[in-house]
Amino acid sequence: MSRLPFRILFAVYPGMTQLDFTGPHQFLSRMPGSETIVASLIGGAVPSEGLVFADTRRLSDVAGCDLLCVPGGLNALDVALDDAFVAEIRRLGGGARYVTSVCTGSLILGAAGLLHGKRAACHWAWRHLLPLFGAIPDEGRVVRDGRVFTGGGVTAGIDFALTVLAEIAGAEVAQTLQLGLEYAPAPPFTSGRPETASPKILAGYRDQIAPLLTRREAQAREAAASLSLIS
Amino acid sequence: MSRLPFRILFAVYPGMTQLDFTGPHQFLSRMPGSETIVASLIGGAVPSEGLVFADTRRLSDVAGCDLLCVPGGLNALDVALDDAFVAEIRRLGGGARYVTSVCTGSLILGAAGLLHGKRAACHWAWRHLLPLFGAIPDEGRVVRDGRVFTGGGVTAGIDFALTVLAEIAGAEVAQTLQLGLEYAPAPPFTSGRPETASPKILAGYRDQIAPLLTRREAQAREAAASLSLIS
Repeated sequence: MSRLPFRILFAVYPGMTQLDFTGPHQFLSRMPGSETIVASLIGGAVPSEGLVFADTRRLSDVAGCDLLCVPGGLNALDVALDDAFVAEIRRLGGGARYVTSVCTGSLILGAAGLLHGKRAACHWAWRHLLPLFGAIPDEGRVVRDGRVFTGGGVTAGIDFALTVLAEIAGAEVAQTLQLGLEYAPAPPFTSGRPETASPKILAGYRDQIAPLLTRREAQAREAAASLSLIS
Repeated sequence: MSRLPFRILFAVYPGMTQLDFTGPHQFLSRMPGSETIVASLIGGAVPSEGLVFADTRRLSDVAGCDLLCVPGGLNALDVALDDAFVAEIRRLGGGARYVTSVCTGSLILGAAGLLHGKRAACHWAWRHLLPLFGAIPDEGRVVRDGRVFTGGGVTAGIDFALTVLAEIAGAEVAQTLQLGLEYAPAPPFTSGRPETASPKILAGYRDQIAPLLTRREAQAREAAASLSLIS
């Protein structure tokens, strides 16, 4: 590591999916020699799925970071259309050694112009929106392209965090944290991917998100259009 | 479900391991027909591993719940010696349909007298303390004994949550949430259990916790002694 502490910044927002953030935070905040910052656009309390994360810093008060991580959320494309938030992501991501995301956080990175020509992961149901931002969708659970590390949907954030830990602090640190956090997953079902879920479960889930999908696709096109004006 | 909403209560405390709580919260709070409550001894803000969870309710203000879940933490045995907290866990657990924990949360359930004669899981490094509370240690990642569901260390909370969801709301609900949260884990290493970690990683981790272990064992004996006076 070129400097100490290694500054990890989670850029959070109201409505994010909290496990996109808390999963990697649990692992990355224990990295020796690191400092973890949680910041939002206006600072203070950030509500998320019934929880409230207090005392977040203001993104504009953060001079820079070594690793930027943006979590996803069902409202990620609302956030991708928030010029002030996206401008901070562009500024902080531009100066970071590592630009990262979990779940639909990659769509926000995309809207900030940080994924052009890059392979990236995303939640499976929203991955097809990545090309609007010039990114190459990759169905990997954790995808690396140069300095960009992206995780798939929600719980992929844990696999993502271990991958990032190994890159930055070495495999021994990553494996020790894995042992301490007892990450030996044993899901009782195999429904975690569209390829392995039953047709009935998959169809039910698709029905649930169908109304949202149309709106989100329009938002992604809008965010992408404004991006081409900027870059 | 016998009544709606199904009340899920997370009993949290400063110093808990946040992913013990946030992992299951992400899954269980999405259970249809449920209400999720987060409460602590004095209410308000609960700091945990660099995060601050705001707006928690006061445990004594919660009349009852259908499912009680107690997360673990490196300070779980300090909490097991906190008479006021333990009394609330005893009261709320006594009336709940399901008594549950993640990680070292089972030691707190034990101190509340809720695990006597029950098989239970715990973080692997602290599991040997369960018999002090009359519980039978089980190395399963998720262990059910009657109305008691316990998860192993930290990340086991996600497997635990899916198991509990299937029990309460049915396999279809559990599998749909698994798909939505893309829980198809793919750890980059196999260090998540002492049996699968390399001897070097295991020895290093044991060295890290050795100073804490002596103290925690004394605390567990103290908590168990006070329990025998109560029951």
